[in-house]
Amino acid sequence: MEFLTGVSPKDVKELSDLRQEESVGKTVKVNGSIHTIRDMGNIAFVVLRKRDGLLQCVYEEGSAGFDLKDLKEESAVEVEGVVNRNEKAPGGMELRLQGIRILSEPAMAMPISVAKYKMNTSLEARLNLRPLSLRNLRERAKFKIQEGIVRGFREFLAAQGFTEIHTPKIGSKGAEGGANIFKLDYFHRPAVLAQSPQFYKQMMVGVYDRVYETAPVFRAEKHNTRRHLNEYTSLDLEMGFIDSFVDIMEMETGVLQHIMEVLKRDYEQELALLSVELPDTRRIPIVSFQEAKQLVSEKYARPIRNPYDLEPEEEVLISRYFKEECDGDFVFVTHYPSKKRPFYAMEDPADPVYTLSFDCLFRGMEITTGGQRIHDYHMLLEKLDKRGMTQEGMEYYLLAFKHGMPPHGGLGIGLERLTMMLLGEDNVRETTLFPRDLSRLEP
Amino acid sequence: MEFLTGVSPKDVKELSDLRQEESVGKTVKVNGSIHTIRDMGNIAFVVLRKRDGLLQCVYEEGSAGFDLKDLKEESAVEVEGVVNRNEKAPGGMELRLQGIRILSEPAMAMPISVAKYKMNTSLEARLNLRPLSLRNLRERAKFKIQEGIVRGFREFLAAQGFTEIHTPKIGSKGAEGGANIFKLDYFHRPAVLAQSPQFYKQMMVGVYDRVYETAPVFRAEKHNTRRHLNEYTSLDLEMGFIDSFVDIMEMETGVLQHIMEVLKRDYEQELALLSVELPDTRRIPIVSFQEAKQLVSEKYARPIRNPYDLEPEEEVLISRYFKEECDGDFVFVTHYPSKKRPFYAMEDPADPVYTLSFDCLFRGMEITTGGQRIHDYHMLLEKLDKRGMTQEGMEYYLLAFKHGMPPHGGLGIGLERLTMMLLGEDNVRETTLFPRDLSRLEP
Repeated sequence: MEFLTGVSPKDVKELSDLRQEESVGKTVKVNGSIHTIRDMGNIAFVVLRKRDGLLQCVYEEGSAGFDLKDLKEESAVEVEGVVNRNEKAPGGMELRLQGIRILSEPAMAMPISVAKYKMNTSLEARLNLRPLSLRNLRERAKFKIQEGIVRGFREFLAAQGFTEIHTPKIGSKGAEGGANIFKLDYFHRPAVLAQSPQFYKQMMVGVYDRVYETAPVFRAEKHNTRRHLNEYTSLDLEMGFIDSFVDIMEMETGVLQHIMEVLKRDYEQELALLSVELPDTRRIPIVSFQEAKQLVSEKYARPIRNPYDLEPEEEVLISRYFKEECDGDFVFVTHYPSKKRPFYAMEDPADPVYTLSFDCLFRGMEITTGGQRIHDYHMLLEKLDKRGMTQEGMEYYLLAFKHGMPPHGGLGIGLERLTMMLLGEDNVRETTLFPRDLSRLEP
Repeated sequence: MEFLTGVSPKDVKELSDLRQEESVGKTVKVNGSIHTIRDMGNIAFVVLRKRDGLLQCVYEEGSAGFDLKDLKEESAVEVEGVVNRNEKAPGGMELRLQGIRILSEPAMAMPISVAKYKMNTSLEARLNLRPLSLRNLRERAKFKIQEGIVRGFREFLAAQGFTEIHTPKIGSKGAEGGANIFKLDYFHRPAVLAQSPQFYKQMMVGVYDRVYETAPVFRAEKHNTRRHLNEYTSLDLEMGFIDSFVDIMEMETGVLQHIMEVLKRDYEQELALLSVELPDTRRIPIVSFQEAKQLVSEKYARPIRNPYDLEPEEEVLISRYFKEECDGDFVFVTHYPSKKRPFYAMEDPADPVYTLSFDCLFRGMEITTGGQRIHDYHMLLEKLDKRGMTQEGMEYYLLAFKHGMPPHGGLGIGLERLTMMLLGEDNVRETTLFPRDLSRLEP
């Protein structure tokens, strides 16, 4: 009888192995994809792309045991050679090639040059060739940083007593209502794709008190803008036993602080590659919706057109204001008008025209929407009634409230938007692995 | 100007605070939901449900400063009292109540008794009342353990150099093909829900070499069995530069070992509550499809009906065989017939009737499907051709192969099934937070 006992050690080395002082002068095996070949005549540089960086391999005619002509860019290979220090090479080391084994070969040369530092290709072209353009080091660094953001979100919340949940994406009714819902046929019954895990995460507050989810959400919005996606990854949290909705914003402040710590700790290489300067999250200014509108109207001599709505340009100005006044990259804008928030938003007892809700703006862009929710069953029914909404499709949601729910609230962060603003990109598709928009369903 | 600086300390205590020796005799505030009230006459026990356990509060008439009649089960409250050691109480301590503040009240008493150790309610009834039945400690412990499984999966793979990805769930074509695809209208274009992240994770091997994803997948299967779901959470990984498909099974062995370590380390309370004995993952037997069929046919005197298929009863017998022969809870069954595997499965060069693929069985149930994939562009085209499939909708997938892909393979683990078998449940709906099946679209 045969058994497997776990991951077996391999005789191929990783970049981290090669960085060790004792590897210098040793003959080692390394695998990778050929990122680029630079033929200088007598010698050539064969650069391997590994998951954590590049490795320059020096080919010298005669001593390498193979013909350079046999090599193709984007072949997967295993090379053998001697480790050498070279301050000019990526990572300060190189391999003097002695042999090569070709593991697989491309059928055709690449249609774009991914080995360039910056690809001078349009976003549209890069998206059309996404599986290839992501092989560029700067392109893939974006999504490595995105990984760090999600890791930071989860790590912080786990430490704060949150439980991770997985809620269904197919359901009978959308949480936010409205027209922007994808519909599908579910065994001859009408169904929809989840716009958010809102109802489920609220129900789960009655179970675990604090929950989070990192999962896709679907919005059939007909906007084709630089900040809208029809499918995105939502970082959601919901927490019970809050004293006020400030607790939720404080939790987001902690989340953002931890994300930046994780990035600084584990993603230094990617941050440097993209020249990203991490924002200061030690203190985040907080301002009410009304006051924010007033402040930017005064400072930037911009008349208030609609007192109950924030235009994108106003978001930009609010961010600019707090950047100028207190060097803040993030700002919490609170007390959004009730009519702009979903039915479950808790109204401000001091002035029910507004809600105990907030958005978090980051360098001019809304990246988070959150707030306190109504937890009282009767208040929830009244609100539905006031809005002319029926309870249809909400029976299970209401059930949780009928049988007791603690005061609670939560928020949703758009992962791709947060990444976009952190990296200083001007289109959310730049920081979406495979974006879905009005015209794009592939790749 | 006002600022937020992170999570503020609260004056309410958590169970972990109360467990400290120095808290005994102190007057503290604690919040929670009233799990149950047991009125004994002169005194009463008011048991609070907290996210990490129960807290018994002792009510004595006159000294508690409130009337017991004012309390309802499932109210959210903040209580004040003196910490006392009591070996008979949950967690070895209790609170002698001095005051109570009601934070919210239910509108109606619970239709089921969640405070019971085991709820003697049918699965169907528990699912219909899911937001309530999950308040039972044993019910919620299942999904806490599920959280630990996902955490173990991610932790191990991150340490092994894997990158987490988020791939789209709406697409133009299903990866596995077939009839079990949910269709939807995407702005007047036909679209489908992802059956698996297969195409995307393979394409991403060309970018990061090793990738994983933990996300929902959708299968429009018309099976209504104890092991099928129409939406489930798939734990997917894909890895490049493999020497053989054994590398993938070794990685899964490592994943399973780490999951059990995480559960043992951080989920002791939940494991004890559900009397779960963790399986031994130190060595996992491996057997070929053909040999497995032969072995169980001989040992259990069961004729082989179809040499190219495994019936569920055979899976059960294979697991029984390895449990009896080597005390193995898991077993890898390798070399599935080519015709039972998708077009991208790598055929065994030694016998192309079979593939370099595997399933992992756990206590009689398939929880993983995996294998090596075809990485050569021409071989992939030939295979499509041989199966009479068109390249339509696969252009982007094929693009990655046309321009070079390393030898690679991967697997997908059904999270709810793994949880089901680990907990010894007999229906996968028991370990699915909000299951979706032929008849169930809510809650």
